[in-house]
Amino acid sequence: MQDTFTPISEVGEFGLIDRLESVLGEPANPSLVMSIGDDAAVYRAGADKVSVVTSDALIEGVHFDLSFIPMEHLGAKSLMVNLSDVIAMNALPKFATVVLGIPNHVSVEMAEELYRGIRKVCEAYDVTIIGGDITGARQLTISITAIGEALEEELAYRKGAEPGDVLCVTGDLGSAFAGLKVLLRERAELQEKKEEFVPTIRQYQYVVNRNLAPVARLGVIQSWREAGFRPHAMIDVSDGLASEVNHLCRRSGCGAIVRASDIPLHDQTHRVATEFGESPTLYQLQGGEDYELLFAAPESELKKLKDSSYAVIGEFVAREEGVVLQHADGTEEELKPIGWDHFA
Amino acid sequence: MQDTFTPISEVGEFGLIDRLESVLGEPANPSLVMSIGDDAAVYRAGADKVSVVTSDALIEGVHFDLSFIPMEHLGAKSLMVNLSDVIAMNALPKFATVVLGIPNHVSVEMAEELYRGIRKVCEAYDVTIIGGDITGARQLTISITAIGEALEEELAYRKGAEPGDVLCVTGDLGSAFAGLKVLLRERAELQEKKEEFVPTIRQYQYVVNRNLAPVARLGVIQSWREAGFRPHAMIDVSDGLASEVNHLCRRSGCGAIVRASDIPLHDQTHRVATEFGESPTLYQLQGGEDYELLFAAPESELKKLKDSSYAVIGEFVAREEGVVLQHADGTEEELKPIGWDHFA
Repeated sequence: MQDTFTPISEVGEFGLIDRLESVLGEPANPSLVMSIGDDAAVYRAGADKVSVVTSDALIEGVHFDLSFIPMEHLGAKSLMVNLSDVIAMNALPKFATVVLGIPNHVSVEMAEELYRGIRKVCEAYDVTIIGGDITGARQLTISITAIGEALEEELAYRKGAEPGDVLCVTGDLGSAFAGLKVLLRERAELQEKKEEFVPTIRQYQYVVNRNLAPVARLGVIQSWREAGFRPHAMIDVSDGLASEVNHLCRRSGCGAIVRASDIPLHDQTHRVATEFGESPTLYQLQGGEDYELLFAAPESELKKLKDSSYAVIGEFVAREEGVVLQHADGTEEELKPIGWDHFA
Repeated sequence: MQDTFTPISEVGEFGLIDRLESVLGEPANPSLVMSIGDDAAVYRAGADKVSVVTSDALIEGVHFDLSFIPMEHLGAKSLMVNLSDVIAMNALPKFATVVLGIPNHVSVEMAEELYRGIRKVCEAYDVTIIGGDITGARQLTISITAIGEALEEELAYRKGAEPGDVLCVTGDLGSAFAGLKVLLRERAELQEKKEEFVPTIRQYQYVVNRNLAPVARLGVIQSWREAGFRPHAMIDVSDGLASEVNHLCRRSGCGAIVRASDIPLHDQTHRVATEFGESPTLYQLQGGEDYELLFAAPESELKKLKDSSYAVIGEFVAREEGVVLQHADGTEEELKPIGWDHFA
């Protein structure tokens, strides 16, 4: 057996992934177009089409707390985060499998609620659940694999951004994290004040919904198809902007400048950060779970798009220039890939 | 929220699956060939080929105990059980994704060992790992999705058996369960006798290996392709013969007669059952985890196959005749679908 015991927290999530990738070695299958390292993997499924596959798990106590998220929302969110990865390849999600590990504190009715959420997302995104597995577990564990399809030339990888491309993002960022802050505060107040607790969640409806019921941007990529637009590179914002910009830069061999004041910010996100005495920019950079699309494109191509569907927040530069955050006052700092790490 | 709390154990694994299938409703995607309810799902992936997809999870404390199974074997087995489901569709496995939930008691080195096992199986079966997810968890959780391919006319479903077809099985049955009994006994003795413990595992090598390092029958289906043989219906034996025969019968709308004395039995399985004062037939019917192929075929087709690759253990009859176990003395009893239930 092993003589050394290195805790996972010492190498971190991405360090562990690198080490396990090394164990696997280089993939050799000629029909594989893209392996580990993007939002999803891609392989040639037939003469004409490629399949896009991604798997993601949500685990109780790590990714969610059953005391705040209703089962139906949890089911919807678990599927949604996987569809978001398929969509971030510029592919259309089609099928999914669901593996559930169910503890004793989850009833048949709760499992059905969870599936009602899954069904709603299936209907909204035209996705079919084609299988899975159900077993006992100590924590509620939801592991989903989503499969999409596309023509090979339609795909957008993390690689492909070029110096001179603009960096764009759909929607606003930081709001899902602001929603989490509100939920945590409400729970603490409920525990403290008991019967006298007055919920204030209503004024924060937008950010709370962004956390509990995220929406993957299928409509955006569908409108791009109609407009004849394809990004040079793309990723979904699941771990926070700082981490995702660095992923695009690393895979594309570029640097980037991100202008802090151009990152779209919702009023409620601003209000929540102010109430907590924290920086809204930090919510945007490190908050995660926004499931917006971050993409690279030549500026000239943007005229194909509706102005309201995205914001330009920076541009790609040569690799030597690094990955830089530019503040409103003109000062700059390195944009470090700090985001969510499940082992930190 | 819900007013009723029905424990999962009250409806059981299959009862829960039925209820969750009802929540999802009927799948509507026209490219879906086979949905939930077989060893794997099937969809048309391109003009010429179908994709076959299955997901399965192994969870610490439910499916395995880290004190008996080396990490490398565990990795290999986790992938193998999924490949077995693809193979049971008469399709060739090609890709897989791996989702790991890792607790604090698992080190980076242990995770690497697990992946070495996965890699060995990838190499032996020509399968490529194309993605996945890694997260923290309280129990080691390994959830794998395997994807295979086939021509549509090559597939063998659970449905398709006809009255008059013979019922056949590859390899021998009950040996994986006999191996589990030996492992449990060795552990109990080790705990009791401490330093004076003398392991006897060597004399039970075959059955212990069947439990720790099961082998999916890719070679069998490859030889069938060469011989121009396709079964009418097929399933892999993961939950025990009793359960699997009933699955084939239910999906095919048939009954079946299984002759107990014709079910292949390994000497070591017989010896272990005798030592425990238990019936070897019970090991074969309810033990599970053998990952052999159980299939239906017209007797005339069997001449295409090598005699050594399978045994005829019974035949399919009309549905009204039921699913029956025939003992060596000619007595008969109903063969109830009793097998492994993770919530029992």
